[in-house]
Amino acid sequence: MSDTAPRPILFRMPLALRWRDLDAFNHVNNSNFLTFIEEARIQWFASLGREWITETIAPLLAAVQMNYRKPIPYPAQVIVELFLERLGNTSITIGHRIVDDGSTTYADGQVVMVWIDRASGKPVPLPKIVLDAAS
Amino acid sequence: MSDTAPRPILFRMPLALRWRDLDAFNHVNNSNFLTFIEEARIQWFASLGREWITETIAPLLAAVQMNYRKPIPYPAQVIVELFLERLGNTSITIGHRIVDDGSTTYADGQVVMVWIDRASGKPVPLPKIVLDAAS
Amino acid sequence: MSDTAPRPILFRMPLALRWRDLDAFNHVNNSNFLTFIEEARIQWFASLGREWITETIAPLLAAVQMNYRKPIPYPAQVIVELFLERLGNTSITIGHRIVDDGSTTYADGQVVMVWIDRASGKPVPLPKIVLDAAS
Amino acid sequence: MSDTAPRPILFRMPLALRWRDLDAFNHVNNSNFLTFIEEARIQWFASLGREWITETIAPLLAAVQMNYRKPIPYPAQVIVELFLERLGNTSITIGHRIVDDGSTTYADGQVVMVWIDRASGKPVPLPKIVLDAAS
Repeated sequence: MSDTAPRPILFRMPLALRWRDLDAFNHVNNSNFLTFIEEARIQWFASLGREWITETIAPLLAAVQMNYRKPIPYPAQVIVELFLERLGNTSITIGHRIVDDGSTTYADGQVVMVWIDRASGKPVPLPKIVLDAAS
Repeated sequence: MSDTAPRPILFRMPLALRWRDLDAFNHVNNSNFLTFIEEARIQWFASLGREWITETIAPLLAAVQMNYRKPIPYPAQVIVELFLERLGNTSITIGHRIVDDGSTTYADGQVVMVWIDRASGKPVPLPKIVLDAAS
Repeated sequence: MSDTAPRPILFRMPLALRWRDLDAFNHVNNSNFLTFIEEARIQWFASLGREWITETIAPLLAAVQMNYRKPIPYPAQVIVELFLERLGNTSITIGHRIVDDGSTTYADGQVVMVWIDRASGKPVPLPKIVLDAAS
Repeated sequence: MSDTAPRPILFRMPLALRWRDLDAFNHVNNSNFLTFIEEARIQWFASLGREWITETIAPLLAAVQMNYRKPIPYPAQVIVELFLERLGNTSITIGHRIVDDGSTTYADGQVVMVWIDRASGKPVPLPKIVLDAAS
């Protein structure tokens, strides 16, 4: 998908950094960027209704790509944006951007998510609420 | 680089999981996989000598790709392997695998690392000890 | 200090929970409570001016007591309150409460903080801005 | 309990630090000390048998006291020791020390643990395997 094609936005969420997000290089640690986009995913799912996680199914991250564009300063409030990149039967590719409220992009990339049967660990179709929200 | 071509191994390190690596889904959290490969990078750098981080330069993660193949059980000791994927003048692409001591691959992927001038934030040539170790 | 004696409040801060604060028991992990009160301390110090951390001195936690009164739900925004418990020459005892915006106390306790000379590791007098703010 | 009275040791475990345990002050972060003693508790419980956590009951931290004696260096392997301090009907007080393999104590203190009914959140008697191990 080209950068110029507008991708449908799925969710947009402010997130306040914490001092503990910094590492010994005094930078927001690379792993915490994944926690930030995870928080946006969870809040997006929760906004759709209860079916996104049940006794029998749960979402699972299959892959992540994160491009670190600029160090995130602390203290700061950032904005996490999720985009629809691709919708399949058993997986969804969700683009993400971590930005400030101006024109700075701290990071971007995408994740591939699947849903699994919690007992067997096997992929199952995407929950209807996710399909509906992304369609 | 094809999967069948043997990539030069840079570092191999055992790592003991912690219960706190688990998240509310009772899975090792996706962000912690980045902490595991970070630990291997830091230990690899440290094994090369002091020049990898100085008053003037520091390494920076430019991008990460992580493919989550299988949930990592807890408790467990895993093995983190780093491979040379590509060596440039100002960046190095390091492949990684998180495996058990048998034939299970929990995750794989690669990171792109650069070194920056700490004052300006601009890229600088790779430290000689890293170039030498990867050549 | 008795619970009925009003302690001077030093700082009050809202904090948004993250899903990753939960552990495998589906509770906000006990260690994260320390991160929450750390965030309040850092923001309080930063609100006082630049002297709280310099090239030569830095704060250090000497001791913490945390009483876990009720599990913190997720999602939630909590409020972290810091109180003056005792002010010495080289240490300050800061009481804390993690509460909701009603009458629920999730946790309380106190920390003892000192400032050290970064080179020697030895205690130094409290920074003037901290003394002034707490007096 | 005086420092000279030998307290019965419950568990002793080596733990390898991770670079991510460091914070922006280049010290092992205060919250991570709680993760280290949590890891020892979990491994101790697991060594006793399956009954320590079931469908109906789970352990809960009621309080923690941690005295930070010396910064823990990185890289390092530390040793976490757990001691019996007090055994009640519905709670156990477990002392802890984080030490090196010589005579350095990095931190000490104690935690109070209870077990709760997962449905009601009410305290229940300590599991028999814990009582037996601590008696």
